[in-house]
Amino acid sequence: MNHLKNSYDKCTYRLAGHGKRDVSVLQDALKDISGEQLSDIYGEGHIIEDFQNKMAKLLGKGTAAFFPSGTMAQQIALRIWCDEKKLNKVAYHPLSHLEIHEMDGLKEIHHIKTILLADKDRVIELDDVVNLEEDIACLLLELPQREIGGQLPSFETLKQISAYCREKSIMLHLDGARLLEVLPFYKKTAAEVCDLFNSVYMSFYKGIGGIAGAVLAGDKDFIEKSKVWRKRYGGTLISLYPYILSADYYFDKRANNMEQYYNSAMELAKLFNDCKDIYTIPEVPVSNMFHVHFKRNQEEIAAILAKVQLANHIGITSYLSKQDGNSCTFELSIGDSCLEILKNLIDKLFDSLREEMK
Amino acid sequence: MNHLKNSYDKCTYRLAGHGKRDVSVLQDALKDISGEQLSDIYGEGHIIEDFQNKMAKLLGKGTAAFFPSGTMAQQIALRIWCDEKKLNKVAYHPLSHLEIHEMDGLKEIHHIKTILLADKDRVIELDDVVNLEEDIACLLLELPQREIGGQLPSFETLKQISAYCREKSIMLHLDGARLLEVLPFYKKTAAEVCDLFNSVYMSFYKGIGGIAGAVLAGDKDFIEKSKVWRKRYGGTLISLYPYILSADYYFDKRANNMEQYYNSAMELAKLFNDCKDIYTIPEVPVSNMFHVHFKRNQEEIAAILAKVQLANHIGITSYLSKQDGNSCTFELSIGDSCLEILKNLIDKLFDSLREEMK
Repeated sequence: MNHLKNSYDKCTYRLAGHGKRDVSVLQDALKDISGEQLSDIYGEGHIIEDFQNKMAKLLGKGTAAFFPSGTMAQQIALRIWCDEKKLNKVAYHPLSHLEIHEMDGLKEIHHIKTILLADKDRVIELDDVVNLEEDIACLLLELPQREIGGQLPSFETLKQISAYCREKSIMLHLDGARLLEVLPFYKKTAAEVCDLFNSVYMSFYKGIGGIAGAVLAGDKDFIEKSKVWRKRYGGTLISLYPYILSADYYFDKRANNMEQYYNSAMELAKLFNDCKDIYTIPEVPVSNMFHVHFKRNQEEIAAILAKVQLANHIGITSYLSKQDGNSCTFELSIGDSCLEILKNLIDKLFDSLREEMK
Repeated sequence: MNHLKNSYDKCTYRLAGHGKRDVSVLQDALKDISGEQLSDIYGEGHIIEDFQNKMAKLLGKGTAAFFPSGTMAQQIALRIWCDEKKLNKVAYHPLSHLEIHEMDGLKEIHHIKTILLADKDRVIELDDVVNLEEDIACLLLELPQREIGGQLPSFETLKQISAYCREKSIMLHLDGARLLEVLPFYKKTAAEVCDLFNSVYMSFYKGIGGIAGAVLAGDKDFIEKSKVWRKRYGGTLISLYPYILSADYYFDKRANNMEQYYNSAMELAKLFNDCKDIYTIPEVPVSNMFHVHFKRNQEEIAAILAKVQLANHIGITSYLSKQDGNSCTFELSIGDSCLEILKNLIDKLFDSLREEMK
């Protein structure tokens, strides 16, 4: 598989992302900032407060707090709702970030029990929530559901789940790591989506392409409590400004590009689906991301992709994940890099790929 | 008290610190870094691994892990030792950072019981440890003890406590937030001090003057476990390099200045102690820091300091903390800023202060 990675690293262009994650990303964000601007100090000061207010307004919530990571922000959100409901139980998708990527932080730190809703290969629907057999303090919905290619429930379903939760006094939390990325599909503002939820987390290094960091938004009491927990976690650093300044810079640069990323994702998915033994999930993307699946073994596909990448100077992927039944897959998230490639070069790339997959 | 802060902000020079905590601190650290240098990714990559190795070597420990904060690093260290000893109890000073500045994170997250050793106004001595009436998993020593002006036990005492803990199978953890700052007094290397401890934390934004961040060092098994907990806390950010690059830059710039800071601290403390109704704790500093105490009320001292600061263009302090019995105090930590002030200007400053305090 090193051959695939090496060929990817040599490419001039890439289908995914916003370019390499190198130090220039931070240097660019800082180049027009006055050196005299004062640091935030342990969660206070203009740099952090102004940005928190900007995000609170975007998300239509009363207040917001900047966090070094979404992992920290979301565990804390669920803990606060469990404390409020005096019930240590939450529900989320079986492939939630909290379930598979956080070394069981939620359980080890907060001793919160989790109910896994829905089958692994589909999103949570209203019936899953209605048929819950146990009381829960909070339901977490991830939009889009990243681990299954970025799938979404309909907005109507979201509204129904929200109304049901309100009726049953279940707190509804949005894992909106990629919230801005789904707005073009829903044709809604961030505030309109967030209005269905009691609390919201959004990331700054997915579609926005910042360095790291996240925001948690909700009402004033919730956010005050989240700041106490942020301090307990050691997340209220003396200076968070390297992440805040870059989040703000790339937010201003890319928040309005999400429709372009979404359109490119739809076009690329169609091109992949036109190749023999390749299909995408979702078939038609509903955000800037999707998963590409190959109905052939990893070694064969790695060799084909390496050849196609090198011939066209366009990186498709640096890795493949083995799947059951002699197949493999990779994830694609569209950002600025794809927009920089001329259409005829992309057509040529897929001409090569179709030819190799014949 | 705004008058004191305002006069401080107007000063050209300052006795404390390394200069303002503004964005130029980060910009300076990045200016000679190649923009093509790749980010660390979730705790991996050259940037983070090389720096961790450099710090492991400095501290004479097998391995080290970079953390966004000392709060996170130290709670995790104590948790690991408690798990190892199957005993949820640790001991530390009543004014330990964990006891008074972390919103009870250790207790709320890990349910670890704490025994407060020694009186508030002195450091922990061997007798305090020997006379412990309960078993503990771990003893935490903070060198220097910041909240009492940065006091230290003798190195001989440290050796005795270390030997006792080893004999009794008590893990010994070093809160070395200001570890480098005490080496000139002890006349030891960092590794020689750390050799007495099972695990060590050091900060990068005290004497070193970086942006934020900390390192935890210990044996391989301990550090592997600390990385699992770092992930659970949401501390293994996709990119920690803004803190790592600046920690490395300011470490190289200032690690060898600690003796100068220490000497300046001793000189300044002497000048303060020569003024009527002013004394320092410790009387003779043992690091770059000490506390300045005034035997008069806060309002009177604020007015005097504001006048002296404005007349001499040298900032002494921006705040005063009220103390029992009509007295007040502030903390002074010496860094580059003090070294930049000509000796005759400092003499003039203290001539004014002595005159005003007569």
